[in-house]
Amino acid sequence: MAIVLGPNRYGKAETRLVRVHRDGDTHGLVDLNVSIALSGDLSATHLTGDNSGVLPTDTMKNTVYAFAKQHGVGEPEEFALLLARHFVRTQGQVDSARVSVESFGWDRLGPHSFQRRGDHTRTTVVTVTRDATQVVSGITGLVLMNTTASEFHGFVRDRYTTLPETTDRILATAVDAKWRHLSDEADWGKSFQGAVDAMTTAFVNTYSFSLQQTLMSMGTLVLSGRPEIAEIRLTLPNKHHYLVDLSVFNLENENEVFIAGDRPYGLIEGTVTRDDVPPATTEWYL
Amino acid sequence: MAIVLGPNRYGKAETRLVRVHRDGDTHGLVDLNVSIALSGDLSATHLTGDNSGVLPTDTMKNTVYAFAKQHGVGEPEEFALLLARHFVRTQGQVDSARVSVESFGWDRLGPHSFQRRGDHTRTTVVTVTRDATQVVSGITGLVLMNTTASEFHGFVRDRYTTLPETTDRILATAVDAKWRHLSDEADWGKSFQGAVDAMTTAFVNTYSFSLQQTLMSMGTLVLSGRPEIAEIRLTLPNKHHYLVDLSVFNLENENEVFIAGDRPYGLIEGTVTRDDVPPATTEWYL
Amino acid sequence: MAIVLGPNRYGKAETRLVRVHRDGDTHGLVDLNVSIALSGDLSATHLTGDNSGVLPTDTMKNTVYAFAKQHGVGEPEEFALLLARHFVRTQGQVDSARVSVESFGWDRLGPHSFQRRGDHTRTTVVTVTRDATQVVSGITGLVLMNTTASEFHGFVRDRYTTLPETTDRILATAVDAKWRHLSDEADWGKSFQGAVDAMTTAFVNTYSFSLQQTLMSMGTLVLSGRPEIAEIRLTLPNKHHYLVDLSVFNLENENEVFIAGDRPYGLIEGTVTRDDVPPATTEWYL
Amino acid sequence: MAIVLGPNRYGKAETRLVRVHRDGDTHGLVDLNVSIALSGDLSATHLTGDNSGVLPTDTMKNTVYAFAKQHGVGEPEEFALLLARHFVRTQGQVDSARVSVESFGWDRLGPHSFQRRGDHTRTTVVTVTRDATQVVSGITGLVLMNTTASEFHGFVRDRYTTLPETTDRILATAVDAKWRHLSDEADWGKSFQGAVDAMTTAFVNTYSFSLQQTLMSMGTLVLSGRPEIAEIRLTLPNKHHYLVDLSVFNLENENEVFIAGDRPYGLIEGTVTRDDVPPATTEWYL
Repeated sequence: MAIVLGPNRYGKAETRLVRVHRDGDTHGLVDLNVSIALSGDLSATHLTGDNSGVLPTDTMKNTVYAFAKQHGVGEPEEFALLLARHFVRTQGQVDSARVSVESFGWDRLGPHSFQRRGDHTRTTVVTVTRDATQVVSGITGLVLMNTTASEFHGFVRDRYTTLPETTDRILATAVDAKWRHLSDEADWGKSFQGAVDAMTTAFVNTYSFSLQQTLMSMGTLVLSGRPEIAEIRLTLPNKHHYLVDLSVFNLENENEVFIAGDRPYGLIEGTVTRDDVPPATTEWYL
Repeated sequence: MAIVLGPNRYGKAETRLVRVHRDGDTHGLVDLNVSIALSGDLSATHLTGDNSGVLPTDTMKNTVYAFAKQHGVGEPEEFALLLARHFVRTQGQVDSARVSVESFGWDRLGPHSFQRRGDHTRTTVVTVTRDATQVVSGITGLVLMNTTASEFHGFVRDRYTTLPETTDRILATAVDAKWRHLSDEADWGKSFQGAVDAMTTAFVNTYSFSLQQTLMSMGTLVLSGRPEIAEIRLTLPNKHHYLVDLSVFNLENENEVFIAGDRPYGLIEGTVTRDDVPPATTEWYL
Repeated sequence: MAIVLGPNRYGKAETRLVRVHRDGDTHGLVDLNVSIALSGDLSATHLTGDNSGVLPTDTMKNTVYAFAKQHGVGEPEEFALLLARHFVRTQGQVDSARVSVESFGWDRLGPHSFQRRGDHTRTTVVTVTRDATQVVSGITGLVLMNTTASEFHGFVRDRYTTLPETTDRILATAVDAKWRHLSDEADWGKSFQGAVDAMTTAFVNTYSFSLQQTLMSMGTLVLSGRPEIAEIRLTLPNKHHYLVDLSVFNLENENEVFIAGDRPYGLIEGTVTRDDVPPATTEWYL
Repeated sequence: MAIVLGPNRYGKAETRLVRVHRDGDTHGLVDLNVSIALSGDLSATHLTGDNSGVLPTDTMKNTVYAFAKQHGVGEPEEFALLLARHFVRTQGQVDSARVSVESFGWDRLGPHSFQRRGDHTRTTVVTVTRDATQVVSGITGLVLMNTTASEFHGFVRDRYTTLPETTDRILATAVDAKWRHLSDEADWGKSFQGAVDAMTTAFVNTYSFSLQQTLMSMGTLVLSGRPEIAEIRLTLPNKHHYLVDLSVFNLENENEVFIAGDRPYGLIEGTVTRDDVPPATTEWYL
């Protein structure tokens, strides 16, 4: 038996970039949080502290800022691909580069004035190896609620089950979704907006008997409308809203007054996929 | 010398209420975080643990939910006044009730479907005593940025000053504002929207030589347009965006590529007031 | 009626300083978060953007780091006093300087090795004006629990009261305390440790009929043992632990199994003071 | 091509349990955050909202509390195994149960009095399937610093590299480690303490030329002393401390005054393993 180095990677996390594009008096604004992780032949630095194969994480940060100037910053998927390919191409010891980007949205208030939106964060994770490129897009923090059109009954009952069945409850969730693209070329902005619109539409229009059913509807509508997406993984917390018992005050609560709970919460996770797509080249939805 | 009880208060903090108003198939939604603090003759419980003058904080929570049913929930200022007056009126030992409310906004997606906004939180703090009522409204989390039209120069220089003067910088802040009303009656919703629009407009339109100047413009525009507001207190972090030095890479950075800094940050706090308004009845802006 | 500038201040918040004191091979470590706010004649920058009376917040940050080298960093109260006095003394337009410091504790693991503690943060807020100096010390994040020796009964009951009386409950809180010193000279380290020990001792030894009673015991023990402290303000969330009803599973829960609740929580705030101390020179406990 | 359901699971997340063990007047205290996820034949609820195979997440929560009474709560690994096995054994449609536990430490202050520690959180993730059981233990939030004995040089330089080489820097990290056990039986408490002591000892004693080298030392010392552990994964943020340039103030900074940075940070991730252990039965370190 020997003790040996296993899988590893390193990089610079959370480089905060604001890029202003100046088109005369009208400015554009891109606001990103960029994280980079490289893997490859990194044994020497682990075993002896020999850094001859280590590109400093400080250099990765510098590269983010320099590329933002040299190439501008458009869709986050494009910027992530540009960075990931750069590291694989220029660093012979690097086998794989993963670039993750969070994008924060701003609404325009004037030619050079903006207000930050807070209703979601757009994400991407790009993985480039010598042989393959994989692009995953996603969204976090999209909070949705239906105040009715949600039932939950017919479930398993065991010794520890006390939950009453209901034919009318609040269904609320904070969508955390990632989807894998079939290719490394797409109209990324249009694809993102289409996927989000499909998820929102499905959430609104599904008369729900379980959050799992809503999840499946959301994923299905995304895939049916977006041929460029191979599969989608949704992580949906069931943000419980508890009906308050007002009967002790001689008041009737007809699904009007709710406690918004913090913890615990249900957590529903599922993938919706096509049955004919090539497998992922890198694990992507854990 | 004796050791004695000084100022004190107690209550229930952060009662999370979601109130659905059902008008046939179309639902309305109010989402609040309510905190209550009472003060008065509370010596007995402090000195001997005699709770005969203590209304349980659990009862305050119940009252929030019961009132939400009995009276509905409209503007947060109204709901806070209703609660505060209830405790002062019904509890003889209570001299003062302070009710604070955070309101979270939701956009409508359908008759009973909603998406949570994340671009600001509306706040109110109402204080009711036997003699006086004070209403403070506010906003937090409103993040604004101008990518130009901001200069900073002509400042004091001492031994420890290294900051270069600039005639073009990013000005960004997360507005945290509170304003005191002259009366306990107003069109609260219209007043709130008017105050926020005034702040945003002033931020956009002020060519700024200091964040203090922008603060003064914001406060002045609010007061000039909203006669129901006595004074306003703005707390504006200067969210620094540092220009990246790209010259070492033979690149010129013409105010295009910035580091969005976390800490430290400037913090500018100021009040704009009318010179003829009655003083506050309770400290309100610390 | 005119719209005028009211109270205001500005400064640099959250300057993160780590100071290593090298005494041969054995190093000492101080880890601080320093915030500075100055007030005085700041009308010009607010009204016209004339910054001739504005020391940049960047300079305040530089001063923190330079003073850390020039003077070393001992007790946080001392370092805060040094900084606050510097700004009032050297800036004629400054009437008042407030310096707030959070101190993070580290346990020694070796001559130059440390592990960060996480069981509390030590705080100080020093206010220096032309006429007066006020030193407030404090602690946050000290979480304490008694699993018994706490009762709650005999309280007011109204229409909305449903809470059952109890003679055995968990009492848990996260101590947030501030205390005002009588002088600007003290053995700060010893004073802090003495105050914290007194609070902890009183929490452990008080058989409690209300959290208010426990608060009073804690404050009283601090003042009785620390003559250098004029008064103390305690903010104690009542971190509710709800007894789980296991009777539906034919199990008896004899105060053994609890839900640790998040929100809402009780919030008990009180001051314990001496009846013969001079009043505070600056508001300090809101 | 068809759109189909892919991998999925569901459960109750973050059930907060405090368990008091009463041994006469001396109480014991266990404070856990328990998350459960089940997978198996869950097609019906996804496709049609038929919940006949769905054990409610509310029932999972109830089970946590009931088991805490029935069986007591000892080591978190044991409690997690008990729960996971229960769900696989009693629910025929469940193929796999994953139970994750965060354990919060408390120091004893008296027979029934405790102070919460904040210097780390102990974790475990147990996965039970019909065929296999896998136990992973871990720690998060253990913050360590060496103020010297760390160098970084000899690294790759490219066009974007500006980092100077250094022979004396601060090395600080917040250890996030997980380790996989060879068996589902062990002296879990002793194993945990041994692993943490080994990591801390290696951090203190390694003269470091890269954080990767320190990571390898830490993992190696854990495996060499703990035969029950198959492999360990360490995620180590490089919490940068930047030397302040005080030369502009005519002060020399001999590695004494540092800025503690927030973002960006390096992120070093690596696995140390034995070359003869059976593979994991479930992905565990992403």
